Amino acid sequence: MSTPQPSDTSHWPPPFLLYLGNAPDDLAAKTARGLVQFRPEWCVGQFRGPQCKTSVHVPDMGFAEAVQAGARTMIVGVANAGGSLGEAAVHDVVAALDAGLNVASGLHERLASHPRIVEAARRNGRHLFDARTPPETPVGNGLPRAGLRLLTVGTDCSTGKMYTTLSLETEMRARGLKADFRATGQTGIFVAGRGIPIDAVVADFISGGVEWLSPDRHDGGWDLIEGQGSLFHPSFAGVSMGLLHGAQADALVLCHEPGRAHMRGLKHYPVPGLRETLEANLEAARLTSPGVVAVGVALNTSRLPAAEAEAACRQAEDLLGLPAQDPVRDGVARIVDRLQACFAD
Amino acid sequence: MSTPQPSDTSHWPPPFLLYLGNAPDDLAAKTARGLVQFRPEWCVGQFRGPQCKTSVHVPDMGFAEAVQAGARTMIVGVANAGGSLGEAAVHDVVAALDAGLNVASGLHERLASHPRIVEAARRNGRHLFDARTPPETPVGNGLPRAGLRLLTVGTDCSTGKMYTTLSLETEMRARGLKADFRATGQTGIFVAGRGIPIDAVVADFISGGVEWLSPDRHDGGWDLIEGQGSLFHPSFAGVSMGLLHGAQADALVLCHEPGRAHMRGLKHYPVPGLRETLEANLEAARLTSPGVVAVGVALNTSRLPAAEAEAACRQAEDLLGLPAQDPVRDGVARIVDRLQACFAD
Repeated sequence: MSTPQPSDTSHWPPPFLLYLGNAPDDLAAKTARGLVQFRPEWCVGQFRGPQCKTSVHVPDMGFAEAVQAGARTMIVGVANAGGSLGEAAVHDVVAALDAGLNVASGLHERLASHPRIVEAARRNGRHLFDARTPPETPVGNGLPRAGLRLLTVGTDCSTGKMYTTLSLETEMRARGLKADFRATGQTGIFVAGRGIPIDAVVADFISGGVEWLSPDRHDGGWDLIEGQGSLFHPSFAGVSMGLLHGAQADALVLCHEPGRAHMRGLKHYPVPGLRETLEANLEAARLTSPGVVAVGVALNTSRLPAAEAEAACRQAEDLLGLPAQDPVRDGVARIVDRLQACFAD
Repeated sequence: MSTPQPSDTSHWPPPFLLYLGNAPDDLAAKTARGLVQFRPEWCVGQFRGPQCKTSVHVPDMGFAEAVQAGARTMIVGVANAGGSLGEAAVHDVVAALDAGLNVASGLHERLASHPRIVEAARRNGRHLFDARTPPETPVGNGLPRAGLRLLTVGTDCSTGKMYTTLSLETEMRARGLKADFRATGQTGIFVAGRGIPIDAVVADFISGGVEWLSPDRHDGGWDLIEGQGSLFHPSFAGVSMGLLHGAQADALVLCHEPGRAHMRGLKHYPVPGLRETLEANLEAARLTSPGVVAVGVALNTSRLPAAEAEAACRQAEDLLGLPAQDPVRDGVARIVDRLQACFAD
């Protein structure tokens, strides 16, 4: 079975069985957890191996049982220590295909690279979908596009950009606005049903990939583009820069985790300041979107007590003159208020 | 035959037969021209097809004749209109392998993707080398590295970064300094005998690829890293940003073509100013190299009369307080003077 482009769910239809395998910790189940949080109606159960050390709190079930419960696709979101699929997981994927499930994966290692998996998919007439295999897109052209676009940017990786972007979608839709989350990472792709794994495209095609993801839009609605990385992350800033240029954003929301000791994975790099981060992002964004404005700050205060969380938000508001909220604690209503005020016609 | 990593010339030894095929214009023969210019001692001849519209001014010869003249590898540097190898070129590559040549290519389309070519290499015990296939490298870590590094940056693509970097190598070696060109594009890789095609790596690995290319150096010499693109090019700035962070440059040289009407390939984008470009590059470079300094400006004045070229250099010098030279007309001696003055211990 060929690996289709990640353009829609026709090859990996919900509902889903979430494959946790032998996930060693909570972080390893990030994709499954994101699906349970944002698409609970798609998640009929989880499959856990004998060494699994986490749960996403949906019913445990086997492959045949999942099919009986209505599951159509198994989502593989966890790798073993080496980042590869591993012998046990390959065995399980083959068993899931034999039980009648399609299989989709967000791992760097492709399902399609395993002949036994490819053969099992063919034998059962099921589809394989590798979310980390990017579609082929043109290089970016920077031409002005119709429509409105918002991008989340951050001081660092893993500051809550996906969560914030999805929260904005929820809040805007609740107000009757047209707004669509545009996914750039594997968890987001599974939640949205489409998207582009922007960290996996060939370097020359980063901005082009984002242009492909959020083309001209004529219905007055917003594309809410999931940001990645940080302009200040020495490993990944190239991705963030291309994303910023390709997004051609009208509005930015800055995401940050107060109190983080250093850049993710890099103990020798401090986290940049909010003002510095916002100014660098606005400056770079102006290349393709001269009128870009910041409309808010989303703080991930999950490790702070309530009083400190509130103080962190107030401090950010005073510093930048923008509404600052923790989307988990407070929602994003005041950020959307500001967005609407800035773009009222 | 497997495609080896572009780490050295053991699989594509010089001397070379340069394959121009049916190149429609001078630009299509850019890689062959770069080799003739910087490695004339490696170029025994050129092979031109019946519709070839250019020459790199080395003797025309067939495959068997090239082998007799000592050629060991044929370098394929030109694609047909669609960017692909084309039926005629595939036929020629097979014939070259049958004549006993190894074959190396800088095209996006891989030699190894053609079964007829792979089979001919196997049959003749020859090697295939795809310079556009990047080596696998770790992600960047931004850790301080020993040694001295210089990076060329530009207002735009194709402003002479490779030429400038190679000219710096020539000038510095003539002064008895240790200095090595580090290639990031396919022509540079053929000239240097190793390198990484940085625009072809997966987006997450841009800075890591450059760290791999220019590791710790303890002999007091310089790595001279070939820049790519521009922080102000909406299509490719992600590559330039990752390159800048990965290079961890001690010194920058700014490359520019005075009088260019717009960004390459993008009529709707003006070329940024020299000062703006230099400041943005220094600012971004400081993330991984806080003490970075600019040491010169290299102007490509090939389309200007001599008086205007001279005026453009004077103007750049006055604007930035840095030596400005056209490496083709004037060499880069004054830029190297400045480099030595800045890094005299």
